[in-house]
Amino acid sequence: MSLSHLKKSGDAVFVDSSVTKANEIVTAWDGKDASNFSLIGVPLSKTSISHSGASFAPASIRKMLSSYSTYHIEDGIDLKTLRVTDFGDITMHVTDFEESRNRIKSTIAELLNQFKDTMPIILGGDHGISFPSIAAFTEARGKIGVIQFDAHHDLRNINDGGRSNGTPFRSLIDEGILNGEHLIQIGLRNFSNSAPYTEFGINHGVTIYTMRDVRELGIQKIIIDSLNRLSQEVDAIYISLDMDVLDQAFAPGCPAIGPGGMDSQTLIDGICYLASHPKVCGMDIVELDPTIDFRDMTSRIAAHVILNFLVEKVKLNR
Amino acid sequence: MSLSHLKKSGDAVFVDSSVTKANEIVTAWDGKDASNFSLIGVPLSKTSISHSGASFAPASIRKMLSSYSTYHIEDGIDLKTLRVTDFGDITMHVTDFEESRNRIKSTIAELLNQFKDTMPIILGGDHGISFPSIAAFTEARGKIGVIQFDAHHDLRNINDGGRSNGTPFRSLIDEGILNGEHLIQIGLRNFSNSAPYTEFGINHGVTIYTMRDVRELGIQKIIIDSLNRLSQEVDAIYISLDMDVLDQAFAPGCPAIGPGGMDSQTLIDGICYLASHPKVCGMDIVELDPTIDFRDMTSRIAAHVILNFLVEKVKLNR
Amino acid sequence: MSLSHLKKSGDAVFVDSSVTKANEIVTAWDGKDASNFSLIGVPLSKTSISHSGASFAPASIRKMLSSYSTYHIEDGIDLKTLRVTDFGDITMHVTDFEESRNRIKSTIAELLNQFKDTMPIILGGDHGISFPSIAAFTEARGKIGVIQFDAHHDLRNINDGGRSNGTPFRSLIDEGILNGEHLIQIGLRNFSNSAPYTEFGINHGVTIYTMRDVRELGIQKIIIDSLNRLSQEVDAIYISLDMDVLDQAFAPGCPAIGPGGMDSQTLIDGICYLASHPKVCGMDIVELDPTIDFRDMTSRIAAHVILNFLVEKVKLNR
Amino acid sequence: MSLSHLKKSGDAVFVDSSVTKANEIVTAWDGKDASNFSLIGVPLSKTSISHSGASFAPASIRKMLSSYSTYHIEDGIDLKTLRVTDFGDITMHVTDFEESRNRIKSTIAELLNQFKDTMPIILGGDHGISFPSIAAFTEARGKIGVIQFDAHHDLRNINDGGRSNGTPFRSLIDEGILNGEHLIQIGLRNFSNSAPYTEFGINHGVTIYTMRDVRELGIQKIIIDSLNRLSQEVDAIYISLDMDVLDQAFAPGCPAIGPGGMDSQTLIDGICYLASHPKVCGMDIVELDPTIDFRDMTSRIAAHVILNFLVEKVKLNR
Amino acid sequence: MSLSHLKKSGDAVFVDSSVTKANEIVTAWDGKDASNFSLIGVPLSKTSISHSGASFAPASIRKMLSSYSTYHIEDGIDLKTLRVTDFGDITMHVTDFEESRNRIKSTIAELLNQFKDTMPIILGGDHGISFPSIAAFTEARGKIGVIQFDAHHDLRNINDGGRSNGTPFRSLIDEGILNGEHLIQIGLRNFSNSAPYTEFGINHGVTIYTMRDVRELGIQKIIIDSLNRLSQEVDAIYISLDMDVLDQAFAPGCPAIGPGGMDSQTLIDGICYLASHPKVCGMDIVELDPTIDFRDMTSRIAAHVILNFLVEKVKLNR
Amino acid sequence: MSLSHLKKSGDAVFVDSSVTKANEIVTAWDGKDASNFSLIGVPLSKTSISHSGASFAPASIRKMLSSYSTYHIEDGIDLKTLRVTDFGDITMHVTDFEESRNRIKSTIAELLNQFKDTMPIILGGDHGISFPSIAAFTEARGKIGVIQFDAHHDLRNINDGGRSNGTPFRSLIDEGILNGEHLIQIGLRNFSNSAPYTEFGINHGVTIYTMRDVRELGIQKIIIDSLNRLSQEVDAIYISLDMDVLDQAFAPGCPAIGPGGMDSQTLIDGICYLASHPKVCGMDIVELDPTIDFRDMTSRIAAHVILNFLVEKVKLNR
Ligand SMILES: [Ca+2]
Ligand SMILES: [Ca+2]
Ligand SMILES: [Ca+2]
Ligand SMILES: [Ca+2]
Ligand SMILES: [Ca+2]
Ligand SMILES: [Ca+2]
Ligand SMILES: [Ca+2]
Ligand SMILES: [Ca+2]
Ligand SMILES: [Ca+2]
Ligand SMILES: [Ca+2]
Ligand SMILES: [Ca+2]
Ligand SMILES: [Ca+2]
Repeated sequence: MSLSHLKKSGDAVFVDSSVTKANEIVTAWDGKDASNFSLIGVPLSKTSISHSGASFAPASIRKMLSSYSTYHIEDGIDLKTLRVTDFGDITMHVTDFEESRNRIKSTIAELLNQFKDTMPIILGGDHGISFPSIAAFTEARGKIGVIQFDAHHDLRNINDGGRSNGTPFRSLIDEGILNGEHLIQIGLRNFSNSAPYTEFGINHGVTIYTMRDVRELGIQKIIIDSLNRLSQEVDAIYISLDMDVLDQAFAPGCPAIGPGGMDSQTLIDGICYLASHPKVCGMDIVELDPTIDFRDMTSRIAAHVILNFLVEKVKLNR
Repeated sequence: MSLSHLKKSGDAVFVDSSVTKANEIVTAWDGKDASNFSLIGVPLSKTSISHSGASFAPASIRKMLSSYSTYHIEDGIDLKTLRVTDFGDITMHVTDFEESRNRIKSTIAELLNQFKDTMPIILGGDHGISFPSIAAFTEARGKIGVIQFDAHHDLRNINDGGRSNGTPFRSLIDEGILNGEHLIQIGLRNFSNSAPYTEFGINHGVTIYTMRDVRELGIQKIIIDSLNRLSQEVDAIYISLDMDVLDQAFAPGCPAIGPGGMDSQTLIDGICYLASHPKVCGMDIVELDPTIDFRDMTSRIAAHVILNFLVEKVKLNR
Repeated sequence: MSLSHLKKSGDAVFVDSSVTKANEIVTAWDGKDASNFSLIGVPLSKTSISHSGASFAPASIRKMLSSYSTYHIEDGIDLKTLRVTDFGDITMHVTDFEESRNRIKSTIAELLNQFKDTMPIILGGDHGISFPSIAAFTEARGKIGVIQFDAHHDLRNINDGGRSNGTPFRSLIDEGILNGEHLIQIGLRNFSNSAPYTEFGINHGVTIYTMRDVRELGIQKIIIDSLNRLSQEVDAIYISLDMDVLDQAFAPGCPAIGPGGMDSQTLIDGICYLASHPKVCGMDIVELDPTIDFRDMTSRIAAHVILNFLVEKVKLNR
Repeated sequence: MSLSHLKKSGDAVFVDSSVTKANEIVTAWDGKDASNFSLIGVPLSKTSISHSGASFAPASIRKMLSSYSTYHIEDGIDLKTLRVTDFGDITMHVTDFEESRNRIKSTIAELLNQFKDTMPIILGGDHGISFPSIAAFTEARGKIGVIQFDAHHDLRNINDGGRSNGTPFRSLIDEGILNGEHLIQIGLRNFSNSAPYTEFGINHGVTIYTMRDVRELGIQKIIIDSLNRLSQEVDAIYISLDMDVLDQAFAPGCPAIGPGGMDSQTLIDGICYLASHPKVCGMDIVELDPTIDFRDMTSRIAAHVILNFLVEKVKLNR
Repeated sequence: MSLSHLKKSGDAVFVDSSVTKANEIVTAWDGKDASNFSLIGVPLSKTSISHSGASFAPASIRKMLSSYSTYHIEDGIDLKTLRVTDFGDITMHVTDFEESRNRIKSTIAELLNQFKDTMPIILGGDHGISFPSIAAFTEARGKIGVIQFDAHHDLRNINDGGRSNGTPFRSLIDEGILNGEHLIQIGLRNFSNSAPYTEFGINHGVTIYTMRDVRELGIQKIIIDSLNRLSQEVDAIYISLDMDVLDQAFAPGCPAIGPGGMDSQTLIDGICYLASHPKVCGMDIVELDPTIDFRDMTSRIAAHVILNFLVEKVKLNR
Repeated sequence: MSLSHLKKSGDAVFVDSSVTKANEIVTAWDGKDASNFSLIGVPLSKTSISHSGASFAPASIRKMLSSYSTYHIEDGIDLKTLRVTDFGDITMHVTDFEESRNRIKSTIAELLNQFKDTMPIILGGDHGISFPSIAAFTEARGKIGVIQFDAHHDLRNINDGGRSNGTPFRSLIDEGILNGEHLIQIGLRNFSNSAPYTEFGINHGVTIYTMRDVRELGIQKIIIDSLNRLSQEVDAIYISLDMDVLDQAFAPGCPAIGPGGMDSQTLIDGICYLASHPKVCGMDIVELDPTIDFRDMTSRIAAHVILNFLVEKVKLNR
């Protein structure tokens, strides 16, 4: 008698022979080779100003991939032959965040250097991780332009609380890693920022699109204008996606939610326009706290963001 | 002294003499006569591939009717004189689903035959119930066309898990009950289907409108085109409404939720365009799991779908 | 050694020296002077027909102000130098609602008389509080016009249950306090009203905009038309905002939720158009039940409504 | 073909031919005859000092009866041939509580008079309902003794908030309906009462057993001593069961929960000792708020209290 | 530069070099060798009479093992050198339960035959899985005695709903697999059973200990008496642990909860007395539904049950 | 007309003139004088190994005081004339924990020095705060003995993650602040510790009472023995109460819950025995995470612990 009905705990409960689930194209790194697309988890959220469980997001986003298939019905693209290397998570120190940021930067830089063609999707974590992550990209991929989706500038001073999820872009600019003119912020919202930081941004050449701009100009024009300009000035473009750019009705699972934000389709459209540009070669997804979400709705959007990103890259390379 | 303040437990806590609640026009079947409109509960959800409490939906949808009135203020239609016969629920076998499907088919067919003029609204249950339900309609009402609102094809093979909520339309086509050309699917979504099943649909003449189509063409044009064609080819049109066609922000209470779906007003508009056609004579509402919903939001939409359907039928018969 | 790190319990956990939180411009009334803008809590929700915890809304709305800043990035307005006087809450009697309504009316009237320039934002409570509140405004500010955002007329008879959250505008009209022609209702919804009350409204000259009107005409035209007419006929305009005018997906924290409602951006736009008119001088926010909300989403919208109202008033006075 | 698989919506989903569910012995009153045991719902909780949804308890307790069978395995008693008349709910006025209390008193008195042998189990509602309920018992059944299970005295003055859930026994004593010496309070808890009310109780001859007494003396001795004394002085004994006598770990669904309370088995034992006495002829169950409970745990205990009460009465009459 | 901070996603976030977590002694089966102790997941709960997510329990129990260490401080036993083979889960058919039961029986029998020394702990699933599981034990380990912890007999007829979670011990007796005299039921509860099934049990020689017996005799005496008798009559003893034997306050995560049950310490004591007997060589843990639990409390108890079982076995073999 | 019905937002909604609520005896520090009893909030929980919202506990415990009165009915003690000084919260640095610990130690030491007679109850925070807190006590009050209620030793090494909530007693011993022989740990639990740390404790003279000891010896004997010994060796005794010493059924709101713990009455008894000793002069309450609690049950127990502590101190000084 056989034991053919035994499966490893954790494997899919039901398998339809005609369906490929999105998690099936993700394979744990073997320590040697890596695909052109990769995942890196960065479970750090103790650097958040407010209470945050964003450190659980890498696991929840990965899990949500198993709720979706590889097939983009509208474009007729099936990702099932694609391979995404999952480099796993970078371990964070329990109490020493400088150490944690060093691990983030050095690990990502090392991976980018070892695997010149891989485009990592970095799963935060709070927005504080974008500082070491973008620093690593700069080191490995040259001059970087950043498209930041966010309700907030994240240009706070570091005196009042150290490097936190409110300071990554300030740190990048202050440290000379990112030129303010190469930072484009999309989705800024009323009553979610303060005048001194808007002024700091303007003074440093940061391009700012508020939600009113998104509603009036449309996401397509904003992205195309941004890509046109940035692509002439930088070597590579990095997407930094703070999930709180979305309206609370669409993404309830972020620490700093509110009304007046983007709907999820607009975000997905924006990601697609971006991903279809060859210089866009990395992305982080941050500020997603699964412990306060409802039915993993916010992680589900993150999974769709990743899959749409991959589809556009596949279309680009056809 | 009188006992005038006693009321049956379960009756309304407060009665406004100028208001008719929607549940008041629904009356339990007396075993004899039936109105032109009727409800049939089909509490089967163990045939779902994933864990589902959709078997609780008939009760929750009925209960939500008591939260709304009979008055359509925009069209000035009051349903208060209408009668809806509630045939009750079809009892499901605890463990034998073939038996359960037989009960569904034979009971609905019998009711359709006994009451030639009744338009049943069938409250699932998971989507698996549409197979016996539509089979019953075919038997009793002639050649059937189906408008399916759904994020998914539901055209899976039955080898991998038997007849489930993923297979109803496959079963209907394979069994020759439904001509693929008489099946119109609206709201299909990326990463929620697989290429082989899309191909199966196309090869069998199924009409497929994705969410991009809905956004670009508009629900009105899609419905009108569909009705124009179908109405010439079939005797009767059946709406199969999988609530997961809605975006997760609007209908969180479905097992298979995700972003990029329809908003609730678009769905209601679509139902109205459909109901205003005389050949549309039945509907099922499926994949609504009240145990994972928030504040019965999804059941509330279902109640509005039913009431809007009735209003359009009343307008048609004026 | 100093004790410089002690702070009062309840004070902000983290202070960024470049950020002013919205709650910081709100100061408890000193018993003497009042600002041009003020808050009054009216924690009465036992007069609701259905179970309601709207009495907790004054506290939750105030708390949500601390989640947002004073800076309106889109208009470049910073409210940080503004002062809002918080008059506190009016204490409600545990079981005597006539007494509670008397307290509401006399307290608000007294405040309006003592502080001729203050524009109070009244935090309910259920909609029943608008009856004494608007009565007080009429007494203190002259002939009043009312813009009511609501899914419901609130024109019920008082025989069936006394004065409740279903009767405020009926009471105001019946008592001769408000001329029906000076009442404009925006956002009325299907299956949420009854024909006799719509007729009552029409017969008394109430202007009624349904949600279909909102979708077809746009909120801007509705508000501008309303202001044009009302401003010629009344001395002052009062906004009565029932949060259930919003769709359940945007504002799940109201007792009477449903689909087909307004999205939050449209409401905020409407409030802005209104607040930019000099005759608009008061507002209540009602039917917000924090005990059934998700992540205070509905209170967050209320906080944004207040802040947008203030910004428009500041723009008006520049 | 038959329609044998149709059942009324709301009827049991599964029927085991060898099992009688507890709800099956409960039959709605036919307006004429009544059994020796009966249920009366009193859905009033707006008289609570704090926010309370205890008005939903009659429905939730009735529903929980359907989760249990009629069979007491330990005593070998099956209640399946017993009949319990459900008189339904007394309708409450939306805003006039004096009217509501009058309805409670007159309806219960009338039922007690019409049906001399019925022992009603009254399902509150908040504890305020015990005032009219016990008044009705006094009118119909003679001199009444009361065994009150409660963490609190409920002897508050009525000046500070009118008659509420904190005042029923004060009102009964002040109105001369109940002699303080015929009131026995069991389960009083630290930090849940105030000295003036304890003094009031002592001064009026109320017998007070704290939770320390319960732990040290045991529930059996307390009940037997109480019955021995009371039964010589009164005509009938009434149990007033405030569910908050239970520890929060056992009964989380009460508005005023806390540690240091009774466990559920001790309460059930106490009820059994009481019910086995022939003079015990009525009971109310109050302060159970299903909206804040977890998995209806507190309603489940209430259902077990009722069933144990019935079993002891059956044993008594064998 | 090294990549030493990368870890596989899913691995422990923090490692204390002096602590061994309980999950670390569990290793996935390599397809070849097995330890003396093993886990087998049986994620079947669609055979439940009521809605059940017990199919999620194998995953939640395994996960909870990672919340505890291997060290039994009271006995000074450290399990860290023990190995537990995790055979994984047996895949269940989506809709064919006869097939699923066949898979359970044949897989477990095969494993028991291949690994004569392994003591499997079987993680259900609903109680229906005990029928094929005990059948497999009978086939592989000889005459079996069963100690069942349960509020319910589970001796229902199979005519009314087929083989379900209410029928396993009936099926075992009816099929001649288990002699009724070798079945000992502990924890039976009032209003949770029906007289005909108690009679069936008695008539077939089943030993029945109610919760009153547990309270009066103590768990130690019950277990010792049971072991003394059973061990002389059977070859091996199997523990069937239905988590609903526990009181709802201790184990809220079971479908059929109620008051009057066992506390968790008593259960753990009982398991320890059993495990310390050499003939006890297998156990199932069933009716644990993580989807309705609070903070995985019920899965945590299951994890402790497993660890205590292992400790006693280690003590036995010292 | 007066404004007598206005109250400050946040003040009690209802006031009974015969009741003093426990929060009414707590008054915010005026910067000058302090009572013999005081509260200090220490909202630090980012030093936890696992995700923790214990930083919210100071606020939730304070809030729960308003749910209880000052009257201990069993001992006839009313605390209403007592005064408790609330020193407020110590502000924590967002990202620098060494700085935060310095603030804790220096602030508490300063307060203890300024107010020689005050007995502070320190509201954590995670258990990491006991390191600086006890250090401050040592500095200000002489040789300290510690009674630790805890499921865990908290004697972890600091190499693996720095100073965390797992290391406070290790740090105190290693730094020579606390003599291991002056540390008594009560409530240690199986599978919640590791052998090396138990050995470390034993080697350093720590007294260890497991939960089995608590069940077998009783809390009274344990406390009396402990006090007898400790009081001869130290100048002052400090209670460190980790709420996870309680069983998960009683205190679900701790990060590290499990079965087999203490019930809440036993804990309260233990606290009373301790508080009645004159050398006991301080306490911390830690590891209470209100964000994962149910109905603030765990904070309610903390409030009762505080009130019982005060009652015993009052009895001592009578
Ligand atoms: Ca950000
Ligand atoms: Ca942000
Ligand atoms: Ca479907
Ligand atoms: Ca679907
Ligand atoms: Ca209203
Ligand atoms: Ca309304
Ligand atoms: Ca009471
Ligand atoms: Ca009470
Ligand atoms: Ca069972
Ligand atoms: Ca059971
Ligand atoms: Ca600890
Ligand atoms: Ca601990």
